[in-house]
Amino acid sequence: MKSIVFFSLPGNESLMDKIACKTNAKIGKAKIHNFPDGESYIRILSDVKDKYIVIICSLNKPDEKVIPLYFLCKTAKSLGAKQVCLVAPYHAYMRQDQIFHFGEGVTATYFAELISGFVDGIITIDPHLHRIKSLSEVYRIPNSVIHATNGISKWIKENVKNPVLIGPDEESKQWVSLVAKKAEAPFLILKKIRHSDTEVDISIPKVEHYENRTPVLLDDIISTAQTMIETVHHLKKVGMKPVVCIGIHAVFSGNAYQELLECGVAQIVTCNTIDHPSNAIDLSHELSMEVQKFISRL
Amino acid sequence: MKSIVFFSLPGNESLMDKIACKTNAKIGKAKIHNFPDGESYIRILSDVKDKYIVIICSLNKPDEKVIPLYFLCKTAKSLGAKQVCLVAPYHAYMRQDQIFHFGEGVTATYFAELISGFVDGIITIDPHLHRIKSLSEVYRIPNSVIHATNGISKWIKENVKNPVLIGPDEESKQWVSLVAKKAEAPFLILKKIRHSDTEVDISIPKVEHYENRTPVLLDDIISTAQTMIETVHHLKKVGMKPVVCIGIHAVFSGNAYQELLECGVAQIVTCNTIDHPSNAIDLSHELSMEVQKFISRL
Repeated sequence: MKSIVFFSLPGNESLMDKIACKTNAKIGKAKIHNFPDGESYIRILSDVKDKYIVIICSLNKPDEKVIPLYFLCKTAKSLGAKQVCLVAPYHAYMRQDQIFHFGEGVTATYFAELISGFVDGIITIDPHLHRIKSLSEVYRIPNSVIHATNGISKWIKENVKNPVLIGPDEESKQWVSLVAKKAEAPFLILKKIRHSDTEVDISIPKVEHYENRTPVLLDDIISTAQTMIETVHHLKKVGMKPVVCIGIHAVFSGNAYQELLECGVAQIVTCNTIDHPSNAIDLSHELSMEVQKFISRL
Repeated sequence: MKSIVFFSLPGNESLMDKIACKTNAKIGKAKIHNFPDGESYIRILSDVKDKYIVIICSLNKPDEKVIPLYFLCKTAKSLGAKQVCLVAPYHAYMRQDQIFHFGEGVTATYFAELISGFVDGIITIDPHLHRIKSLSEVYRIPNSVIHATNGISKWIKENVKNPVLIGPDEESKQWVSLVAKKAEAPFLILKKIRHSDTEVDISIPKVEHYENRTPVLLDDIISTAQTMIETVHHLKKVGMKPVVCIGIHAVFSGNAYQELLECGVAQIVTCNTIDHPSNAIDLSHELSMEVQKFISRL
């Protein structure tokens, strides 16, 4: 049996506690703070020699997190840790997965290369895989993706009476249909009709069938929430009931959360991949199972 | 003749313009910005194929700068740049140069290792070399240090009548004596007498000799400025004239600059290694000379 010690970067304590508890593993002590000049200070206070280290660090606002994460990994290794595995429930930079304009780089690849340089394995939850089909295309270290599908379906079944699931675009169809199947609910996929650069209409096929159902709008990342807000307005306009918005990752940049709340939604629900007041779907069970499997294979 | 193109990260434009002008080299165009979710976007708009790229990026507040810097380097290389050289007028993390307490890492070394992974050479100005004696101990890439000594001596000669230079501690003696020699001025080194954990007195040898001189207090980094403020108070107490404070690197964390101003100093002067209102000593000449020499050797 390999001995696991968990650490987390600030902001991930709550999720780490849940995973560590379910994994029946130790939580390591570390001092992690910022000096007044913006440099990071790391000190590991627990014994990590010959241990398998699992660091919980969601990668929203990624730039400021890489250095403390890197220092924590290097310090653990310098103290004799056997392997260091990163659990990044939210994985950044997956949307810049190709060169859209000449002069850009594929930062999804660059970011993964950098992380590969100092961790021995990575586990993440539903990264935004689009043109990059698998994490192994960008990571040269052992990697694993777990899914929020079951957690979301279960939450809908238990909390929404008579739901209809809504996918924001064709790209979401495969995922939304899977969630709908497990939730035993119907689903529909929105079609965008673009009139001009600024005017976009949304068409809802057979909307009259769903007037008595509670619309549950699904997306993987809620960031600026602008698309979601627009969609909520459209669903209102066509006479649907107040919308339940579900996102996997509560990125919520700027005032996005407040703005989405204020546009008259029934509820906003996210998974606990990024610590946020909207977290209602706990994925610590899935994570703890995967961590144990992953470490046993390292 | 190798063709150089300069880029800078936000905040370094003024110094870059001066260096590029003196080097007679091109300034490249790039879009560098932050998405609302905190991810960085980089796009290079100039031709960099077969060029030698010099990026000006001072490393104060280092954590948030590493990712955009790394993306800029990777993107330049992907577009065919021959070599990418970093000019970091201020170099971070040099003070954590040993393990002070068990469980710490030597972040000075870790940081240099990370940077070495994606730039081909580094030039910096007076890094805080103490236990690490040379950059080559931590960098595995070509590296070069230039000094602010001449610039500071020259400024003192031109701007302070009848100065006496003051080094804050024994560690500063070698450097302060050199500045003093070039400025043709006397100098003295403060001795700290520690009475308890909180009470520290400063003794000034033969203070009566210097009562009519303007004290010029020197330090390499002004960060929280607490030591400098304390020293200014002591110099006042023993009857010296208002102090001119000179620092190489204007880190000034939090309210440090305001606090130092308000403790009754004659003037605060820094070199332009970090863009700041106190910058009065321009090191672009030294930097442009070194960049040309450095690139010619790559």
